[in-house]
Amino acid sequence: MMKNQTQRAPGRPRHTKDDPPIQEMIIQTASKRFMEYGYEPVSLHQIAEACHVSKPAIYYHFSSKPELFKVAVTSVLNNVHQHIARILEDAEHLEAGLVSVAEARLTNPHAEIETMLREAEPFLNEEQIREIRLAEHHIYQVLADQFQAAMDNDMFRSNDPMLLAHTFSAMLMLGNRKDALQKYTTNEALAKEIVSIFLRGASA
Amino acid sequence: MMKNQTQRAPGRPRHTKDDPPIQEMIIQTASKRFMEYGYEPVSLHQIAEACHVSKPAIYYHFSSKPELFKVAVTSVLNNVHQHIARILEDAEHLEAGLVSVAEARLTNPHAEIETMLREAEPFLNEEQIREIRLAEHHIYQVLADQFQAAMDNDMFRSNDPMLLAHTFSAMLMLGNRKDALQKYTTNEALAKEIVSIFLRGASA
Repeated sequence: MMKNQTQRAPGRPRHTKDDPPIQEMIIQTASKRFMEYGYEPVSLHQIAEACHVSKPAIYYHFSSKPELFKVAVTSVLNNVHQHIARILEDAEHLEAGLVSVAEARLTNPHAEIETMLREAEPFLNEEQIREIRLAEHHIYQVLADQFQAAMDNDMFRSNDPMLLAHTFSAMLMLGNRKDALQKYTTNEALAKEIVSIFLRGASA
Repeated sequence: MMKNQTQRAPGRPRHTKDDPPIQEMIIQTASKRFMEYGYEPVSLHQIAEACHVSKPAIYYHFSSKPELFKVAVTSVLNNVHQHIARILEDAEHLEAGLVSVAEARLTNPHAEIETMLREAEPFLNEEQIREIRLAEHHIYQVLADQFQAAMDNDMFRSNDPMLLAHTFSAMLMLGNRKDALQKYTTNEALAKEIVSIFLRGASA
Protein backbone atom coordinates (compact mmCIF):
# COMPACT_ATOMS: atom_id res chain seq x y z
CA MET A 1 0.00 0.00 0.00
CA MET A 2 1.36 3.42 -0.90
CA LYS A 3 1.53 5.73 2.04
CA ASN A 4 -0.23 9.02 1.53
CA GLN A 5 2.05 11.16 3.56
CA THR A 6 2.31 14.65 2.18
CA GLN A 7 5.18 15.77 4.38
CA ARG A 8 8.53 14.10 4.65
CA ALA A 9 9.04 12.91 8.21
CA PRO A 10 12.40 13.80 9.74
CA GLY A 11 14.99 11.21 8.81
CA ARG A 12 12.81 9.84 6.01
CA PRO A 13 14.57 9.34 2.70
CA ARG A 14 14.19 12.08 0.13
CA HIS A 15 11.66 10.22 -2.04
CA THR A 16 8.06 11.33 -2.02
CA LYS A 17 5.05 10.19 -4.00
CA ASP A 18 5.98 12.88 -6.53
CA ASP A 19 9.09 10.85 -7.29
CA PRO A 20 7.66 7.89 -9.18
CA PRO A 21 10.89 6.59 -10.76
CA ILE A 22 12.22 5.32 -7.40
CA GLN A 23 8.99 3.58 -6.58
CA GLU A 24 8.80 2.17 -10.09
CA MET A 25 12.38 0.96 -9.81
CA ILE A 26 11.64 -0.81 -6.52
CA ILE A 27 8.58 -2.50 -8.02
CA GLN A 28 10.46 -3.60 -11.12
CA THR A 29 13.43 -4.91 -9.17
CA ALA A 30 11.19 -6.68 -6.68
CA SER A 31 9.12 -8.22 -9.51
CA LYS A 32 12.19 -9.65 -11.21
CA ARG A 33 13.60 -11.11 -7.99
CA PHE A 34 10.32 -12.53 -6.68
CA MET A 35 9.45 -14.09 -10.06
CA GLU A 36 12.93 -15.63 -10.31
CA TYR A 37 13.55 -16.81 -6.74
CA GLY A 38 10.16 -16.89 -5.04
CA TYR A 39 9.08 -15.01 -1.94
CA GLU A 40 11.24 -16.18 0.91
CA PRO A 41 14.76 -16.18 -0.58
CA VAL A 42 14.40 -12.50 -1.59
CA SER A 43 15.05 -9.94 1.13
CA LEU A 44 14.17 -6.25 1.21
CA HIS A 45 17.86 -5.70 1.92
CA GLN A 46 18.77 -7.24 -1.46
CA ILE A 47 16.11 -5.20 -3.24
CA ALA A 48 17.31 -2.00 -1.58
CA GLU A 49 20.90 -2.77 -2.55
CA ALA A 50 19.99 -3.51 -6.17
CA CYS A 51 18.08 -0.20 -6.33
CA HIS A 52 20.89 1.73 -4.62
CA VAL A 53 18.47 2.93 -1.95
CA SER A 54 18.28 2.35 1.78
CA LYS A 55 15.92 -0.17 3.38
CA PRO A 56 13.96 2.70 5.02
CA ALA A 57 13.44 4.09 1.51
CA ILE A 58 11.63 0.87 0.65
CA TYR A 59 9.54 1.02 3.82
CA TYR A 60 8.65 4.61 2.90
CA HIS A 61 6.91 3.34 -0.22
CA PHE A 62 5.72 -0.08 0.94
CA SER A 63 4.54 -0.91 4.41
CA SER A 64 5.98 -4.44 4.46
CA LYS A 65 7.61 -7.17 2.39
CA PRO A 66 4.24 -8.93 1.80
CA GLU A 67 2.81 -5.61 0.59
CA LEU A 68 5.71 -5.05 -1.81
CA PHE A 69 5.33 -8.63 -3.01
CA LYS A 70 1.63 -8.08 -3.70
CA VAL A 71 2.26 -4.84 -5.61
CA ALA A 72 5.17 -6.39 -7.56
CA VAL A 73 3.32 -9.57 -8.53
CA THR A 74 0.04 -7.87 -9.44
CA SER A 75 2.07 -5.41 -11.52
CA VAL A 76 3.63 -8.30 -13.47
CA LEU A 77 0.25 -9.99 -13.87
CA ASN A 78 -1.39 -6.76 -15.06
CA ASN A 79 1.35 -6.28 -17.64
CA VAL A 80 0.94 -9.86 -18.86
CA HIS A 81 -2.82 -9.34 -19.04
CA GLN A 82 -2.52 -6.14 -21.09
CA HIS A 83 0.11 -7.67 -23.35
CA ILE A 84 -1.99 -10.76 -24.09
CA ALA A 85 -5.14 -8.69 -24.65
CA ARG A 86 -3.29 -6.49 -27.15
CA ILE A 87 -1.78 -9.46 -29.01
CA LEU A 88 -5.14 -11.20 -29.33
CA GLU A 89 -6.88 -8.01 -30.39
CA ASP A 90 -4.29 -7.24 -33.09
CA ALA A 91 -4.13 -10.80 -34.45
CA GLU A 92 -5.74 -11.64 -37.77
CA HIS A 93 -7.34 -14.78 -36.36
CA LEU A 94 -7.34 -16.83 -33.16
CA GLU A 95 -4.58 -19.23 -34.23
CA ALA A 96 -2.19 -16.40 -35.12
CA GLY A 97 -2.99 -14.67 -31.83
CA LEU A 98 -2.38 -17.79 -29.78
CA VAL A 99 0.92 -18.48 -31.58
CA SER A 100 2.06 -14.93 -30.74
CA VAL A 101 1.00 -15.32 -27.11
CA ALA A 102 2.77 -18.69 -26.92
CA GLU A 103 5.91 -17.36 -28.54
CA ALA A 104 6.05 -14.39 -26.15
CA ARG A 105 5.60 -16.68 -23.18
CA LEU A 106 8.17 -19.24 -24.40
CA THR A 107 10.69 -16.44 -24.89
CA ASN A 108 10.18 -15.24 -21.31
CA PRO A 109 9.47 -18.31 -19.28
CA HIS A 110 9.14 -17.59 -15.62
CA ALA A 111 8.48 -19.50 -12.49
CA GLU A 112 5.18 -21.27 -12.38
CA ILE A 113 3.05 -18.61 -10.65
CA GLU A 114 1.03 -21.18 -8.74
CA THR A 115 4.11 -22.71 -7.11
CA MET A 116 5.42 -19.27 -6.22
CA LEU A 117 2.12 -18.12 -4.75
CA ARG A 118 1.72 -21.26 -2.69
CA GLU A 119 5.16 -20.67 -1.21
CA ALA A 120 4.32 -17.00 -0.51
CA GLU A 121 0.76 -17.35 0.77
CA PRO A 122 1.61 -18.18 4.41
CA PHE A 123 3.20 -14.72 4.59
CA LEU A 124 0.33 -12.80 2.95
CA ASN A 125 -2.96 -11.65 4.40
CA GLU A 126 -6.30 -12.50 2.81
CA GLU A 127 -6.66 -9.18 1.06
CA GLN A 128 -3.21 -9.47 -0.52
CA ILE A 129 -3.94 -12.99 -1.72
CA ARG A 130 -7.30 -11.86 -3.10
CA GLU A 131 -5.76 -9.00 -5.08
CA ILE A 132 -3.10 -11.25 -6.62
CA ARG A 133 -5.65 -13.94 -7.50
CA LEU A 134 -7.89 -11.35 -9.12
CA ALA A 135 -5.02 -10.04 -11.30
CA GLU A 136 -4.24 -13.63 -12.27
CA HIS A 137 -7.89 -14.33 -13.05
CA HIS A 138 -7.97 -11.44 -15.55
CA ILE A 139 -5.31 -13.21 -17.64
CA TYR A 140 -7.36 -16.38 -17.87
CA GLN A 141 -10.51 -14.36 -18.51
CA VAL A 142 -9.08 -12.68 -21.62
CA LEU A 143 -8.22 -16.12 -23.04
CA ALA A 144 -11.57 -17.60 -21.93
CA ASP A 145 -13.43 -14.78 -23.72
CA GLN A 146 -11.69 -15.69 -26.98
CA PHE A 147 -12.48 -19.37 -26.50
CA GLN A 148 -16.12 -18.60 -25.71
CA ALA A 149 -16.28 -16.63 -28.98
CA ALA A 150 -14.77 -19.62 -30.83
CA MET A 151 -17.51 -21.83 -29.33
CA ASP A 152 -20.19 -19.33 -30.31
CA ASN A 153 -18.83 -19.57 -33.89
CA ASP A 154 -18.86 -23.39 -33.75
CA MET A 155 -15.13 -23.33 -34.28
CA PHE A 156 -14.63 -24.99 -30.87
CA ARG A 157 -16.83 -27.73 -29.51
CA SER A 158 -18.76 -26.74 -26.41
CA ASN A 159 -16.57 -26.82 -23.33
CA ASP A 160 -15.75 -24.82 -20.23
CA PRO A 161 -13.86 -21.79 -21.64
CA MET A 162 -12.06 -21.33 -18.32
CA LEU A 163 -10.78 -24.91 -18.43
CA LEU A 164 -9.44 -24.27 -21.93
CA ALA A 165 -7.77 -21.06 -20.73
CA HIS A 166 -6.02 -22.93 -17.93
CA THR A 167 -5.11 -25.80 -20.25
CA PHE A 168 -3.55 -23.50 -22.83
CA SER A 169 -1.68 -21.62 -20.14
CA ALA A 170 -0.38 -24.86 -18.61
CA MET A 171 0.91 -25.99 -22.01
CA LEU A 172 2.99 -22.84 -22.25
CA MET A 173 4.93 -24.01 -19.21
CA LEU A 174 6.82 -26.13 -21.74
CA GLY A 175 8.97 -23.04 -22.17
CA ASN A 176 10.63 -24.11 -18.94
CA ARG A 177 11.50 -27.50 -20.39
CA LYS A 178 13.63 -26.37 -23.30
CA ASP A 179 16.52 -28.63 -22.34
CA ALA A 180 14.26 -31.59 -22.94
CA LEU A 181 12.85 -30.20 -26.19
CA GLN A 182 15.95 -29.23 -28.10
CA LYS A 183 14.40 -30.53 -31.29
CA TYR A 184 12.47 -27.25 -31.51
CA THR A 185 15.21 -24.88 -32.53
CA THR A 186 13.08 -21.73 -32.34
CA ASN A 187 10.39 -20.60 -29.95
CA GLU A 188 8.20 -19.97 -32.99
CA ALA A 189 8.40 -23.62 -34.03
CA LEU A 190 7.56 -24.82 -30.53
CA ALA A 191 4.77 -22.22 -30.20
CA LYS A 192 3.17 -23.38 -33.48
CA GLU A 193 3.33 -27.01 -32.41
CA ILE A 194 1.77 -26.32 -29.01
CA VAL A 195 -1.01 -24.20 -30.50
CA SER A 196 -1.65 -26.88 -33.12
CA ILE A 197 -2.11 -29.55 -30.43
CA PHE A 198 -4.30 -27.20 -28.39
CA LEU A 199 -6.54 -26.15 -31.30
CA ARG A 200 -7.07 -29.75 -32.42
CA GLY A 201 -7.88 -30.59 -28.81
CA ALA A 202 -10.47 -27.81 -28.55
CA SER A 203 -11.93 -27.90 -32.07
CA ALA A 204 -15.46 -28.86 -32.96
CA MET B 1 25.54 -40.53 -0.84
CA MET B 2 25.36 -43.29 1.74
CA LYS B 3 28.53 -43.64 3.68
CA ASN B 4 29.91 -47.15 3.63
CA GLN B 5 31.33 -47.21 7.09
CA THR B 6 31.11 -50.62 8.66
CA GLN B 7 32.03 -49.52 12.14
CA ARG B 8 30.35 -46.88 14.19
CA ALA B 9 32.80 -44.07 14.89
CA PRO B 10 32.92 -42.93 18.51
CA GLY B 11 30.24 -40.36 19.16
CA ARG B 12 28.39 -41.26 15.99
CA PRO B 13 24.66 -41.84 16.40
CA ARG B 14 23.54 -45.42 16.75
CA HIS B 15 22.21 -45.77 13.19
CA THR B 16 24.17 -47.83 10.69
CA LYS B 17 23.40 -48.89 7.16
CA ASP B 18 21.81 -51.99 8.66
CA ASP B 19 19.17 -49.69 10.09
CA PRO B 20 17.22 -48.66 7.01
CA PRO B 21 14.07 -47.33 8.72
CA ILE B 22 15.88 -44.23 10.01
CA GLN B 23 17.42 -43.50 6.63
CA GLU B 24 14.07 -44.16 4.93
CA MET B 25 12.33 -41.88 7.39
CA ILE B 26 14.80 -39.08 6.72
CA ILE B 27 14.34 -39.48 2.95
CA GLN B 28 10.56 -39.51 3.24
CA THR B 29 10.44 -36.52 5.53
CA ALA B 30 12.91 -34.59 3.38
CA SER B 31 10.96 -35.46 0.21
CA LYS B 32 7.71 -34.13 1.63
CA ARG B 33 9.27 -30.91 2.87
CA PHE B 34 11.34 -30.18 -0.25
CA MET B 35 8.40 -30.89 -2.57
CA GLU B 36 6.17 -28.63 -0.50
CA TYR B 37 8.44 -25.70 0.31
CA GLY B 38 11.36 -25.92 -2.14
CA TYR B 39 15.04 -26.26 -1.35
CA GLU B 40 16.05 -23.20 0.59
CA PRO B 41 13.25 -22.76 3.15
CA VAL B 42 13.80 -26.32 4.42
CA SER B 43 16.63 -26.82 6.91
CA LEU B 44 18.32 -30.03 8.02
CA HIS B 45 17.46 -28.91 11.52
CA GLN B 46 13.72 -29.04 10.70
CA ILE B 47 14.09 -32.44 9.07
CA ALA B 48 16.01 -33.79 12.07
CA GLU B 49 13.38 -32.47 14.44
CA ALA B 50 10.51 -33.96 12.43
CA CYS B 51 12.32 -37.33 12.43
CA HIS B 52 13.15 -37.10 16.15
CA VAL B 53 16.84 -37.56 15.38
CA SER B 54 19.85 -35.29 15.85
CA LYS B 55 21.37 -33.27 13.02
CA PRO B 56 24.56 -35.40 13.21
CA ALA B 57 22.32 -38.44 12.58
CA ILE B 58 21.33 -36.88 9.27
CA TYR B 59 24.96 -36.14 8.40
CA TYR B 60 25.78 -39.74 9.21
CA HIS B 61 23.53 -40.86 6.35
CA PHE B 62 23.87 -37.92 3.96
CA SER B 63 27.01 -35.94 3.41
CA SER B 64 25.24 -32.59 2.89
CA LYS B 65 21.87 -30.88 2.39
CA PRO B 66 22.28 -30.88 -1.44
CA GLU B 67 23.01 -34.62 -1.30
CA LEU B 68 19.93 -35.31 0.82
CA PHE B 69 17.90 -33.14 -1.57
CA LYS B 70 19.15 -35.17 -4.54
CA VAL B 71 18.36 -38.51 -2.87
CA ALA B 72 14.93 -37.27 -1.70
CA VAL B 73 13.90 -35.79 -5.06
CA THR B 74 15.14 -38.71 -7.18
CA SER B 75 13.34 -41.03 -4.76
CA VAL B 76 10.08 -39.15 -5.39
CA LEU B 77 10.67 -39.14 -9.14
CA ASN B 78 11.48 -42.87 -9.19
CA ASN B 79 8.26 -43.60 -7.30
CA VAL B 80 6.26 -41.48 -9.74
CA HIS B 81 7.94 -43.25 -12.65
CA GLN B 82 7.15 -46.73 -11.32
CA HIS B 83 3.60 -45.73 -10.45
CA ILE B 84 2.92 -44.34 -13.93
CA ALA B 85 4.54 -47.31 -15.67
CA ARG B 86 2.36 -49.71 -13.65
CA ILE B 87 -0.83 -47.75 -14.33
CA LEU B 88 -0.19 -47.64 -18.08
CA GLU B 89 0.75 -51.31 -18.19
CA ASP B 90 -2.38 -52.40 -16.32
CA ALA B 91 -4.76 -50.18 -18.31
CA GLU B 92 -7.09 -51.69 -20.90
CA HIS B 93 -6.24 -49.00 -23.44
CA LEU B 94 -4.28 -45.75 -23.69
CA GLU B 95 -7.19 -43.46 -22.84
CA ALA B 96 -8.05 -45.38 -19.65
CA GLY B 97 -4.38 -45.40 -18.65
CA LEU B 98 -3.99 -41.66 -19.18
CA VAL B 99 -7.18 -40.92 -17.22
CA SER B 100 -5.81 -42.97 -14.32
CA VAL B 101 -2.45 -41.21 -14.49
CA ALA B 102 -4.19 -37.83 -14.64
CA GLU B 103 -6.50 -38.66 -11.77
CA ALA B 104 -3.60 -39.81 -9.58
CA ARG B 105 -1.70 -36.64 -10.35
CA LEU B 106 -4.70 -34.36 -9.80
CA THR B 107 -5.30 -36.02 -6.44
CA ASN B 108 -1.72 -35.37 -5.35
CA PRO B 109 -0.72 -32.13 -6.98
CA HIS B 110 2.72 -31.01 -6.00
CA ALA B 111 4.99 -28.13 -6.73
CA GLU B 112 5.99 -27.74 -10.32
CA ILE B 113 9.23 -29.71 -10.32
CA GLU B 114 10.88 -27.38 -12.81
CA THR B 115 10.36 -24.32 -10.62
CA MET B 116 11.65 -26.19 -7.58
CA LEU B 117 14.73 -27.48 -9.39
CA ARG B 118 15.58 -24.08 -10.78
CA GLU B 119 15.50 -22.67 -7.26
CA ALA B 120 17.66 -25.53 -5.96
CA GLU B 121 20.19 -25.81 -8.79
CA PRO B 122 22.55 -23.05 -7.60
CA PHE B 123 23.16 -25.20 -4.50
CA LEU B 124 23.70 -28.50 -6.34
CA ASN B 125 26.75 -29.81 -8.15
CA GLU B 126 26.62 -31.02 -11.76
CA GLU B 127 26.43 -34.68 -10.84
CA GLN B 128 23.50 -34.08 -8.48
CA ILE B 129 21.64 -32.10 -11.15
CA ARG B 130 22.36 -34.79 -13.74
CA GLU B 131 20.98 -37.56 -11.50
CA ILE B 132 17.78 -35.64 -10.78
CA ARG B 133 17.27 -34.77 -14.45
CA LEU B 134 17.77 -38.40 -15.43
CA ALA B 135 15.15 -39.56 -12.92
CA GLU B 136 12.80 -36.92 -14.30
CA HIS B 137 13.53 -37.96 -17.89
CA HIS B 138 12.44 -41.53 -17.14
CA ILE B 139 8.94 -40.28 -16.32
CA TYR B 140 8.61 -38.52 -19.65
CA GLN B 141 10.14 -41.51 -21.44
CA VAL B 142 7.48 -43.93 -20.18
CA LEU B 143 4.78 -41.60 -21.54
CA ALA B 144 6.70 -40.96 -24.78
CA ASP B 145 6.97 -44.74 -25.36
CA GLN B 146 3.18 -45.03 -25.18
CA PHE B 147 2.72 -42.11 -27.55
CA GLN B 148 5.25 -43.54 -30.01
CA ALA B 149 3.27 -46.81 -29.97
CA ALA B 150 0.07 -44.81 -30.67
CA MET B 151 1.81 -43.21 -33.67
CA ASP B 152 3.01 -46.61 -34.91
CA ASN B 153 -0.64 -47.73 -34.78
CA ASP B 154 -1.79 -44.62 -36.68
CA MET B 155 -3.88 -43.68 -33.66
CA PHE B 156 -1.81 -40.50 -33.23
CA ARG B 157 -0.59 -38.35 -36.07
CA SER B 158 3.17 -38.23 -36.43
CA ASN B 159 4.72 -35.93 -33.86
CA ASP B 160 7.60 -35.73 -31.43
CA PRO B 161 6.58 -38.23 -28.71
CA MET B 162 8.69 -36.37 -26.15
CA LEU B 163 6.84 -33.10 -26.89
CA LEU B 164 3.55 -34.91 -26.33
CA ALA B 165 4.87 -36.35 -23.05
CA HIS B 166 5.80 -32.88 -21.83
CA THR B 167 2.50 -31.43 -23.07
CA PHE B 168 0.43 -34.03 -21.27
CA SER B 169 2.46 -33.60 -18.12
CA ALA B 170 2.08 -29.80 -18.27
CA MET B 171 -1.70 -30.16 -18.61
CA LEU B 172 -1.78 -32.13 -15.36
CA MET B 173 -0.51 -29.02 -13.58
CA LEU B 174 -4.17 -27.97 -13.69
CA GLY B 175 -4.47 -29.94 -10.48
CA ASN B 176 -2.89 -26.94 -8.81
CA ARG B 177 -5.61 -24.65 -10.15
CA LYS B 178 -8.58 -26.30 -8.52
CA ASP B 179 -9.84 -23.06 -7.02
CA ALA B 180 -10.30 -21.73 -10.53
CA LEU B 181 -11.90 -24.91 -11.82
CA GLN B 182 -14.54 -25.61 -9.22
CA LYS B 183 -16.93 -26.67 -11.94
CA TYR B 184 -15.17 -30.05 -11.98
CA THR B 185 -16.44 -31.53 -8.76
CA THR B 186 -14.31 -34.68 -8.92
CA ASN B 187 -10.74 -35.29 -10.00
CA GLU B 188 -12.09 -38.02 -12.26
CA ALA B 189 -14.26 -35.54 -14.18
CA LEU B 190 -11.36 -33.12 -14.61
CA ALA B 191 -8.98 -35.97 -15.56
CA LYS B 192 -11.37 -37.18 -18.26
CA GLU B 193 -11.76 -33.70 -19.68
CA ILE B 194 -8.00 -33.06 -19.80
CA VAL B 195 -7.31 -36.43 -21.42
CA SER B 196 -10.08 -35.80 -23.94
CA ILE B 197 -8.54 -32.48 -24.98
CA PHE B 198 -5.08 -34.06 -25.13
CA LEU B 199 -6.16 -37.09 -27.18
CA ARG B 200 -8.03 -34.93 -29.70
CA GLY B 201 -4.95 -32.75 -29.92
CA ALA B 202 -2.67 -35.70 -30.61
CA SER B 203 -4.96 -37.85 -32.73
CA ALA B 204 -4.46 -38.70 -36.37
